Amino acid sequence: MSDLPKAIQINEEGPREGFQFERGPIPTARKIELIDSLSETGLNQIQVASFVNPKNVPGMADADEVVAGFTRRPGVRYTALWLNEKGLQRALATGRLDVKGSLSLTASEYFLKRNQNRTAAQDLEAERSIARMYRSLGVPVERTSIRAAFGCNYQGDVPVAHVVRQIGSLIEAAGEEGFTIKLVSLADTMAWATPASVKRLVGAVREAHPNLDVALHLHDTRGMGIANAYAGLEMGVTTFDSSVAGLGGCPFAGHRGAAGNVCTEDLVFMCDEMGIATGVDLQKLIASALLAEEVVGHPLPGSVMRGGTLAALRAAAQRAAAA
Amino acid sequence: MSDLPKAIQINEEGPREGFQFERGPIPTARKIELIDSLSETGLNQIQVASFVNPKNVPGMADADEVVAGFTRRPGVRYTALWLNEKGLQRALATGRLDVKGSLSLTASEYFLKRNQNRTAAQDLEAERSIARMYRSLGVPVERTSIRAAFGCNYQGDVPVAHVVRQIGSLIEAAGEEGFTIKLVSLADTMAWATPASVKRLVGAVREAHPNLDVALHLHDTRGMGIANAYAGLEMGVTTFDSSVAGLGGCPFAGHRGAAGNVCTEDLVFMCDEMGIATGVDLQKLIASALLAEEVVGHPLPGSVMRGGTLAALRAAAQRAAAA
Repeated sequence: MSDLPKAIQINEEGPREGFQFERGPIPTARKIELIDSLSETGLNQIQVASFVNPKNVPGMADADEVVAGFTRRPGVRYTALWLNEKGLQRALATGRLDVKGSLSLTASEYFLKRNQNRTAAQDLEAERSIARMYRSLGVPVERTSIRAAFGCNYQGDVPVAHVVRQIGSLIEAAGEEGFTIKLVSLADTMAWATPASVKRLVGAVREAHPNLDVALHLHDTRGMGIANAYAGLEMGVTTFDSSVAGLGGCPFAGHRGAAGNVCTEDLVFMCDEMGIATGVDLQKLIASALLAEEVVGHPLPGSVMRGGTLAALRAAAQRAAAA
Repeated sequence: MSDLPKAIQINEEGPREGFQFERGPIPTARKIELIDSLSETGLNQIQVASFVNPKNVPGMADADEVVAGFTRRPGVRYTALWLNEKGLQRALATGRLDVKGSLSLTASEYFLKRNQNRTAAQDLEAERSIARMYRSLGVPVERTSIRAAFGCNYQGDVPVAHVVRQIGSLIEAAGEEGFTIKLVSLADTMAWATPASVKRLVGAVREAHPNLDVALHLHDTRGMGIANAYAGLEMGVTTFDSSVAGLGGCPFAGHRGAAGNVCTEDLVFMCDEMGIATGVDLQKLIASALLAEEVVGHPLPGSVMRGGTLAALRAAAQRAAAA
């Protein structure tokens, strides 16, 4: 009866999101333990670190040690973030990461001005120079992303047409350096999306860029994360970023204590129950989520890690019925 | 672009769900304070108490005092629960409640056996006798509900056809006493529903009983509450039970610490942002949610009460743009 996708790709971002956000300090060995645990769940892409200035992000001061220390499992892509060539060079130097470039624009000009003191034109120019950097270093670029694609705490609503145009600009900038963009990630950075706006924006992006895959990076700050993911599934979206246990938080003003990224195991649970393959073993993922909670030392927002799966209950019910 | 409903009816159940579930004790005056706060939000139906044996539910020992104490606001229906004639008589005796009957069956025969030591046939017989009681007391009955309609921790999945048949049995039992059923509430008592199963069951019920309004009573134990509500909206469901701040919890084994009912202000937020009228002032409702947290003395699972609304951010952004 349903036209939901048969399978989705989940990009696990919990380690990077979480260690970046948590006040910590979290011992390097425990970070590695969590990554190794996630490697055993069936997740095939895990973002493990951010190569940024430790003065700005103290939780990432040990990024090199973390990347050197985890056990690489065949079939799993380990990724990282960086903001400039220095960070990228650090990522490349590890020799242990799947290093791919991405070009990003921020949909909100106010946010851009406020956070990076840039105009939209300067933002695009910076991405052009990043594309040149990727070409000169031989790093492939197939992905773009739009931050605050659904709205911004400082600017308010973001027009759909603006996001569609920005994607076009990024495709063009990538093309100038010989890159063909295959995917755009629409990031609900400040949790403005609803199921209706997910459908509206994904629909418009599809119409304007029919050959582009669409990914969703959803935040759960206002409790809409899973509903927005479902709306994405209904639109045929097959790539989602998420965080185990809902690791990570929302660094924006007024959101203290609010949830961050949409929770991986809640997303996997929904997919499992709706017949959408994720490749992930939910029970193992819940064990990782409980480990994540132990590692950060406080409750995390995931639901299924507390509510439990239905598979075990179904099996017990069948045993009881047979007895 | 959307065929979502233009407006929905929200039945607030937070006070009843919460005070029933919380270990407490919560002073009667504080319970009344929360109800009075909810009365100011625009909610037009609030379930304030449960007239049950205080030995079983100590948090409801002061139900009569609570009902005697709150301030009735014109235009708001105040409702209560009861399990038998004694409870119903207490509710009637207050003279301050909107007393309407409802007939309910439990979709899971295992749960019925385990919790009430009844067969399905005995369960239906009990509802017939309840229908007779309502008629003899002159209490109108227009509502039915099916508990565990989406699955059961003890029985496993519940066949859609079984739920559809049970609704038919209740309509018949009501008809024998001269009542015409107008609504069926599908309760996801143990949080088995997903957006896909909500669509499946609501669709089947609609097909079999096209003149019946469908309501959803959703639990958020596995984080699917808001996504399930969205799926309901997509199916045209216009009546939802919910709890301010997510008050209430899940009393079933293995769910300790898990969330209970879907959260009213998160539901209102989603509706507001999608252009669906609820009649509720979200900012006032958030104030009630924060009060609920204070009254119970521990964090509650609501998201928007922490993440905040978009309306204030939009207004600030407009002021900044105009400056």
